Amino acid sequence: TRARDLGIKPGVLAPGKQNSITDVLGVKVGHTTLVKGDSIRTGVTAIIPHNGNIFQEKVPAAVFIGNGFGKLTGSTQIEELGNIETPIILTNTLNVATGINAVIKYSLKQQGNEEVRSINAIVGETNDGYLNDIRGQHVQIDDVNSAIENADLEVEEGNVGAGTGTICFGFKGGIGTSSRKLPESLGGYTIGVLVQTNFGGNLQIDGAPVGEELQQFSFRDRILDSADGSCMIVVATDAPLDSRNLKRLAKRAVLGLGKTGGIASNGSGDYVIAFSTYESNRIPYKIESNLLQMEVVPNDLMSPIFMGAIEATEEAILNSLFMAETMTGYKGRTIKALPKDQVLPILKKYGVINK
Amino acid sequence: TRARDLGIKPGVLAPGKQNSITDVLGVKVGHTTLVKGDSIRTGVTAIIPHNGNIFQEKVPAAVFIGNGFGKLTGSTQIEELGNIETPIILTNTLNVATGINAVIKYSLKQQGNEEVRSINAIVGETNDGYLNDIRGQHVQIDDVNSAIENADLEVEEGNVGAGTGTICFGFKGGIGTSSRKLPESLGGYTIGVLVQTNFGGNLQIDGAPVGEELQQFSFRDRILDSADGSCMIVVATDAPLDSRNLKRLAKRAVLGLGKTGGIASNGSGDYVIAFSTYESNRIPYKIESNLLQMEVVPNDLMSPIFMGAIEATEEAILNSLFMAETMTGYKGRTIKALPKDQVLPILKKYGVINK
Amino acid sequence: TRARDLGIKPGVLAPGKQNSITDVLGVKVGHTTLVKGDSIRTGVTAIIPHNGNIFQEKVPAAVFIGNGFGKLTGSTQIEELGNIETPIILTNTLNVATGINAVIKYSLKQQGNEEVRSINAIVGETNDGYLNDIRGQHVQIDDVNSAIENADLEVEEGNVGAGTGTICFGFKGGIGTSSRKLPESLGGYTIGVLVQTNFGGNLQIDGAPVGEELQQFSFRDRILDSADGSCMIVVATDAPLDSRNLKRLAKRAVLGLGKTGGIASNGSGDYVIAFSTYESNRIPYKIESNLLQMEVVPNDLMSPIFMGAIEATEEAILNSLFMAETMTGYKGRTIKALPKDQVLPILKKYGVINK
Amino acid sequence: TRARDLGIKPGVLAPGKQNSITDVLGVKVGHTTLVKGDSIRTGVTAIIPHNGNIFQEKVPAAVFIGNGFGKLTGSTQIEELGNIETPIILTNTLNVATGINAVIKYSLKQQGNEEVRSINAIVGETNDGYLNDIRGQHVQIDDVNSAIENADLEVEEGNVGAGTGTICFGFKGGIGTSSRKLPESLGGYTIGVLVQTNFGGNLQIDGAPVGEELQQFSFRDRILDSADGSCMIVVATDAPLDSRNLKRLAKRAVLGLGKTGGIASNGSGDYVIAFSTYESNRIPYKIESNLLQMEVVPNDLMSPIFMGAIEATEEAILNSLFMAETMTGYKGRTIKALPKDQVLPILKKYGVINK
Repeated sequence: TRARDLGIKPGVLAPGKQNSITDVLGVKVGHTTLVKGDSIRTGVTAIIPHNGNIFQEKVPAAVFIGNGFGKLTGSTQIEELGNIETPIILTNTLNVATGINAVIKYSLKQQGNEEVRSINAIVGETNDGYLNDIRGQHVQIDDVNSAIENADLEVEEGNVGAGTGTICFGFKGGIGTSSRKLPESLGGYTIGVLVQTNFGGNLQIDGAPVGEELQQFSFRDRILDSADGSCMIVVATDAPLDSRNLKRLAKRAVLGLGKTGGIASNGSGDYVIAFSTYESNRIPYKIESNLLQMEVVPNDLMSPIFMGAIEATEEAILNSLFMAETMTGYKGRTIKALPKDQVLPILKKYGVINK
Repeated sequence: TRARDLGIKPGVLAPGKQNSITDVLGVKVGHTTLVKGDSIRTGVTAIIPHNGNIFQEKVPAAVFIGNGFGKLTGSTQIEELGNIETPIILTNTLNVATGINAVIKYSLKQQGNEEVRSINAIVGETNDGYLNDIRGQHVQIDDVNSAIENADLEVEEGNVGAGTGTICFGFKGGIGTSSRKLPESLGGYTIGVLVQTNFGGNLQIDGAPVGEELQQFSFRDRILDSADGSCMIVVATDAPLDSRNLKRLAKRAVLGLGKTGGIASNGSGDYVIAFSTYESNRIPYKIESNLLQMEVVPNDLMSPIFMGAIEATEEAILNSLFMAETMTGYKGRTIKALPKDQVLPILKKYGVINK
Repeated sequence: TRARDLGIKPGVLAPGKQNSITDVLGVKVGHTTLVKGDSIRTGVTAIIPHNGNIFQEKVPAAVFIGNGFGKLTGSTQIEELGNIETPIILTNTLNVATGINAVIKYSLKQQGNEEVRSINAIVGETNDGYLNDIRGQHVQIDDVNSAIENADLEVEEGNVGAGTGTICFGFKGGIGTSSRKLPESLGGYTIGVLVQTNFGGNLQIDGAPVGEELQQFSFRDRILDSADGSCMIVVATDAPLDSRNLKRLAKRAVLGLGKTGGIASNGSGDYVIAFSTYESNRIPYKIESNLLQMEVVPNDLMSPIFMGAIEATEEAILNSLFMAETMTGYKGRTIKALPKDQVLPILKKYGVINK
Repeated sequence: TRARDLGIKPGVLAPGKQNSITDVLGVKVGHTTLVKGDSIRTGVTAIIPHNGNIFQEKVPAAVFIGNGFGKLTGSTQIEELGNIETPIILTNTLNVATGINAVIKYSLKQQGNEEVRSINAIVGETNDGYLNDIRGQHVQIDDVNSAIENADLEVEEGNVGAGTGTICFGFKGGIGTSSRKLPESLGGYTIGVLVQTNFGGNLQIDGAPVGEELQQFSFRDRILDSADGSCMIVVATDAPLDSRNLKRLAKRAVLGLGKTGGIASNGSGDYVIAFSTYESNRIPYKIESNLLQMEVVPNDLMSPIFMGAIEATEEAILNSLFMAETMTGYKGRTIKALPKDQVLPILKKYGVINK
């Protein structure tokens, strides 16, 4: 059950139709989930900005680094050139190279890219090494390919794809998504978020102090904090934003992480990648004129879009927790799902449900 | 009444003795409050890192920019050199120059600074132009001097100093402070925060959706968002942090702002200045040896300090709201204090009080 | 005599008509030169991006920080919002506040700005405290105003305005300017640069090792390096660049500084401010539609514009040296002009002249 | 023949004994050169910061991005944590993933790293796709391993390792190295630089306009600029610098690139990685005490170290050109070596030789 189906409704803006990153027109998501034997609990999640050849029609993009203890690749070129030219791949820390290689091979093969010799692969990760035999580097290039190929509008959440083996606030984390649709008076734009949650802190659910009530939070006993976590956040929007305002948007997503109780701990690589799908702002690989025409939202109208990213990030993280299930993996270790039977009473006590 | 006296206790760490930035040994705070006639509602707040000649004994420092729509001065030199060499001054947007000039004159006159020809004044601001005749630039150099001279360990909150005319979540904001003291097992350090609150969003008090309950939040009616706000946050710690880890610490404070419902709106200049008072890490103006000896907290032990900054920032913002009082000012405009009679029942309903 | 009139022609691109920042249509420059009594050797230089009300019609802009040991104000808002809303003021280190105040008062008074309550003044500086009684803070608000008011297309160089008391490579520095005009096949754009030179290193003139030949370079005897310098660089262009590519352009200017032998020493605050005058990309203060239309140079066509900024910066610095004259000032100190009688033979020896 | 053996002596500081990055005690360099058949012209260069287990004893480090059109991995973690924990690998653009994978496998296998689950591989690249069949991704993991294993104090230059197929200023580029040893009065430190040169511009050799004389420079005929270049610069020093001053040092290296005529063109990914080998500042993986003791060079004593990095970078780039030889590769394309017979007369004409 997703958070909203339980009555948890963070913020004041309405979600999009699917309450998913794919509410942003053109965005698709695919997963490859690897659960094999006792030790392999990992996978790949691919986010596709649009249906065309992304290398030939790049999308404006930006990265914000909440905490840089992570291995996201491609960020410096995004910052410099203001765009993304490949699908975004999420996986585990020690398979980033597999992600890069797969994206390169995928792009080299695409029709129209026959002469391409440089590709900026965007591959993010979190460390699933507690439940997964991460040192085994079990993700293969084909696993990445199939995540890309299987991408569609339905986004599975929880123990899937790059979230198969992740841990969040000491519970089973995973993939989550959410969206916000602004009223027409505020631009009518959609902001969609997808997260791969693998971080710690002091869990709050729409304000309720669930971590404290369950006596499970960072530093309570100095054990829970041992994970070398990370939270990858992808923000998509159909608002026509240039890379500067996309960077500002990316920065806001971290506030949503904070509202769930995340503290961006030393070991948590927290990265936000934001992109705009607005079709007429795409950047062609082959320059056909000396000037690009763009239309962009002015700074003064950004605040509601910021608010959308904060709210959707908070809810996407909650979805990753509510949709994940108890998982046993590497070395027989088990991480339990968020105990809904204990959590729902807490949410009632604190007025989150039935408010 | 401060938030904690009402039973509001954000987070899991204990506050310091005074629950104030001055719990960090050596730090002092002074205010000059200007309430004159119908139109002047502004002032100055000075934060003094230590008792000595700061120019001669600089403190390691860093700045994080949550949203750069603001006029903080001195930030590029802090970033480059990793230190602060003057008191930190907060005031209104159009009196930043007065702050700089006062700090320069103060520093030039200090014993030992007779030959000094370059001073990096750190002056932050928020825009109090709704309640204050800001275009009149009513802060004088003497007002800054008296804030510096009057600095002591007692920190007044609410409508004082640089918070005299500020607005927060549509209510009267102002100056707030709070601190956290880590248990010895986590280093035993103190983290203190002082804020000047003048921003909008969707107010949450320790998780309770007060803005929604009061039907007062950004974009509800597109009126509340008109303020050209800002939130200045100053974080002090006695932990021996170098400028790199101080920058990371500063970044965390913004998560505390997010937890109160701040959205870092387009017009909100949100800056965090963090410094360490650890005595043996001070940077002498006059180099007496070819190497500086430093001792620093390793990266891996930073997370509890981060958590302290998040919690203290959240509580400092709440204190600024709870301690502020209804203010009438420029053009007869009135901004009401947070209505405690309405807020306390909400806090009870959501289990924040008596939890 | 300017460098080019002596036959010094750095680079391969042609200069604009005046070989000046004012070759960029609409840009104007004004100086106030303060040479009074024995001790006052300072001044103000104002660069005006266009003839209109800049606050109401902001220009896309960016800042690059070569070395942040300086006091430039306004940089964080430029970075966040991507624009400039006032004239750019250059002066001495301890009169930055005067510059801010003057710009604020100037902007508050402009027709159309009656309700404005927030102004981002861009004030840069270098430290002229060797020749000027800088602790006396001798620049007055009227001096800034007259620099703005006197701005026109003729740019005086050398010991004028903010360059009145500056020192460069141990010789008298000052204000210099230069420009490049790209051939139509490369876009036909003009790039103009103005510098305020006050830094050290190992002087090279179009490749010739003048500092070495004259035995005057940093660390030769540990005396020349005592100045607390800075180099302010302003880059204007009529190319339609967004703030991202303006930041890249600003970064290139520092390469031009490097080619003159500048080393961006610890004490040298080296800042570059770049802006685009392209009229249809101006950002209105009052938003009249929900989207801004922009047209921008694509990334792939930026390189010639970069080259223009490098070459014009190099030549502007040389102009500041060649146009400056020997100056005696504070405490009877004298800084000599670049000794042309010794330099010209060196330039001939190294093939710079008559090449 | 290296530049200095021809009498080319950029700058005023003396080189170290080998005029190589390995003059910095403990630093070693290894190459794998892949010249196979008609089409494979690529390779790997490994820079080893010290002899021990680098993951267990990390070195303080920083990255500066001159132009981010490149694929360097690991930069965000260096920025966040201030250190490097693996050898630095350079290779071609489409084999970055191979580099990462090799470094991960190398690190996982090292004694003491049995429990390690997160490794920040530093892999830089330039695009050798003109002479090399880059789309074939011909570098193998074993090639990276052998570069690491073969690392020693002798540094081959020119068409070796990651420089096997690169192009610089239209001539054959490659690997180059150089160093500077400061006099004891300036600290006595050594600064060593290694470059992988693959960029364009307007070649200057110690000030002489060689590109112009040979009529070979960017935009002359719009053909030479077609390469999607990059310049990787690695700066090592035994000076005890923290990550903040290492970042400043890295920034200076770009000035050396500028002095050779590099323009940091749009397509040139120019990255500088700087690290300090100072033994007692190494950062242990396993924290054994709550505080790290460090000793660091104060800001005020950095300038000579900056100058060393500028000079060594300039000379390293020249060495890469002078040591490279004419290469024929992919599709029968040939890139000629710098034509010494034409260049030496130019250097004499401009007084660079026999000055």
